[in-house]
Amino acid sequence: MNTLQVELGDRRYPIYIGCGLLDQTELYIKHIKAKQVMVVTNEKVAALYLGTVLEQLKAYEVAQVILPDGEQHKSLDVLTQIFDTLLANKFGRSATVIALGGGVIGDMGGFAAACYQRGIPFIQIPTTLLAQVDSSVGGKTGVNHPLGKNMIGAFYQPQCVIADTDVLDSLDDRQLSAGLAEVIKYGLIRDAEFFGWLEDNMDALLARDKQALAFAIERSCINKAEVVAEDETESGVRATLNLGHTFGHAIETGLGYGEYLHGEAVAIGTCQAADLSRRKGWLNDSDVERIIVLFKRAKLPVYPPNALSPEQFIKFMSVDKKNVDGDIRLILLKAIGLATLPVGVDEKLLHTTLASYRS
Amino acid sequence: MNTLQVELGDRRYPIYIGCGLLDQTELYIKHIKAKQVMVVTNEKVAALYLGTVLEQLKAYEVAQVILPDGEQHKSLDVLTQIFDTLLANKFGRSATVIALGGGVIGDMGGFAAACYQRGIPFIQIPTTLLAQVDSSVGGKTGVNHPLGKNMIGAFYQPQCVIADTDVLDSLDDRQLSAGLAEVIKYGLIRDAEFFGWLEDNMDALLARDKQALAFAIERSCINKAEVVAEDETESGVRATLNLGHTFGHAIETGLGYGEYLHGEAVAIGTCQAADLSRRKGWLNDSDVERIIVLFKRAKLPVYPPNALSPEQFIKFMSVDKKNVDGDIRLILLKAIGLATLPVGVDEKLLHTTLASYRS
Repeated sequence: MNTLQVELGDRRYPIYIGCGLLDQTELYIKHIKAKQVMVVTNEKVAALYLGTVLEQLKAYEVAQVILPDGEQHKSLDVLTQIFDTLLANKFGRSATVIALGGGVIGDMGGFAAACYQRGIPFIQIPTTLLAQVDSSVGGKTGVNHPLGKNMIGAFYQPQCVIADTDVLDSLDDRQLSAGLAEVIKYGLIRDAEFFGWLEDNMDALLARDKQALAFAIERSCINKAEVVAEDETESGVRATLNLGHTFGHAIETGLGYGEYLHGEAVAIGTCQAADLSRRKGWLNDSDVERIIVLFKRAKLPVYPPNALSPEQFIKFMSVDKKNVDGDIRLILLKAIGLATLPVGVDEKLLHTTLASYRS
Repeated sequence: MNTLQVELGDRRYPIYIGCGLLDQTELYIKHIKAKQVMVVTNEKVAALYLGTVLEQLKAYEVAQVILPDGEQHKSLDVLTQIFDTLLANKFGRSATVIALGGGVIGDMGGFAAACYQRGIPFIQIPTTLLAQVDSSVGGKTGVNHPLGKNMIGAFYQPQCVIADTDVLDSLDDRQLSAGLAEVIKYGLIRDAEFFGWLEDNMDALLARDKQALAFAIERSCINKAEVVAEDETESGVRATLNLGHTFGHAIETGLGYGEYLHGEAVAIGTCQAADLSRRKGWLNDSDVERIIVLFKRAKLPVYPPNALSPEQFIKFMSVDKKNVDGDIRLILLKAIGLATLPVGVDEKLLHTTLASYRS
């Protein structure tokens, strides 16, 4: 097991990465403060891992909420189910929420913990590659609104993150690829060496080589933890983690949550951002080619859905957390391994990318 | 105008108290960061003061949400209306929410600001005595759940609080009295001298003597600001501000939100807490008598509603943020001017108070 620290002063916490962590009882005990524990998970994950987790929690008074699976259920309405269960069980401020699942469960379990009685402790047990390398680390929690993704939420840090690499065995190929989109992102925004490693090891990752996956997860988490420690609430460098996400969120919101996986939408969006960076004169053709090829090799889509017109893209991109007074701002690339801070973009140039970069 | 500071490090902010503040444009400008401003208010307050506030905001892009009036509307459902309007207007992270109203509007506007895009700035303009002396100061925001009051929320500090004492002219007598309940609370928990002043000046306050009201508001805010600065997230002394509130919340939740005003329920609850403190041997008969007499003089109810049985009280009191692992804990009084931290109470003794202290 490797332990990384997210350095956030009195909110500092460890990320445990390794195999067989799900049944290491002492990891749970170390981070649970009182006797009430509430596990939030979804139908799919519950069938696979809830039993193992409950097994470790025999010393506690445990309640559980099993939510429907999928991004379309990451809503205020479904969130209410968590509050209902916490209250029905008379859970207090010292109760701990355990979010057992992918990004949707982590975001919702974390946001419920952030709001319940104005904040109770929570633990992240991410069960997808995407959640292990990205969404479980850094304290971004929340739900979607019909008009915009992740528009309602909180920065709220967990007590710890338990990333058991064994659970990736049960992940389907599409979910594995979706996670790789965020892995590639770290290479693109701040770690050119890692991008090169990914070019060399993409086949091993897709073949689920344990050692390669463990390395990719750890390197991703190191990158994420460094960025978050520097800028917890996204007043600066943390925004670079959003490379491709403004385009991607427009795809997710525009087509209806759940149609594309988050990682798939991010892959497309990153290729669009790369295209726009080339038009800005920052990337050259061969950089863009390398980026597109790597996403393709990761079995990810690289062109936007035809169902979404450039005009619709712009409509959905105009509600984004990086925007200022309604003006669209994007993370772009100066080079492979070097992202910009949010930059305003000329709408004509943006439209050119949206209209030209299509399959 | 007097200016108090709530000393919270980088979240430090001023409370402005005085007459004629609502049309001092510079107070707004000083605390609004970008051009988008959203005013959250209710039907009643909008008719009285929204025009004046909008007049000061001519330089900004302004949106507004007018919510229904009353504690029964402090819910996640109604909160959604604020998010809908923010998104429909494409408001970004630099937008400012202005909460113009009583405690319900302040709590909801503040919570919406806390959650929208994971946190945007907000300004409190409290228009009731209760909001000016208590709920607008200290960053407690949130909504009710059918099973418990203020169960969903955040600690989230405003940019400033603008308490214009002129607005109290439009307050009805019942609302004025409800505010006095929280004023009396400060005397009881930590300011015996102020309690004495209130005994001497209750008639002046009810007659709306400007000087007396201004003194009471300022003294209350000084007390509140000191407690909050010492313990922002209620891990210790801040819980003393909840004197009478566990009983009071049971009344509000048990009878349906909106039946009793919050201050009325707190007045009754504080008398119950005083009765229990006497049974503990901490207060003597004449202390309890002084407390009950002062609430009565403030035209507040002092006995619990007959519709709520002791058993029902205990049921609703068993979901309270001060409870630990399901055990009820209460703020009690060691003397007038000296509150305890949350103490566990023998259920039999609690039942005695609930059964005996009735009209």
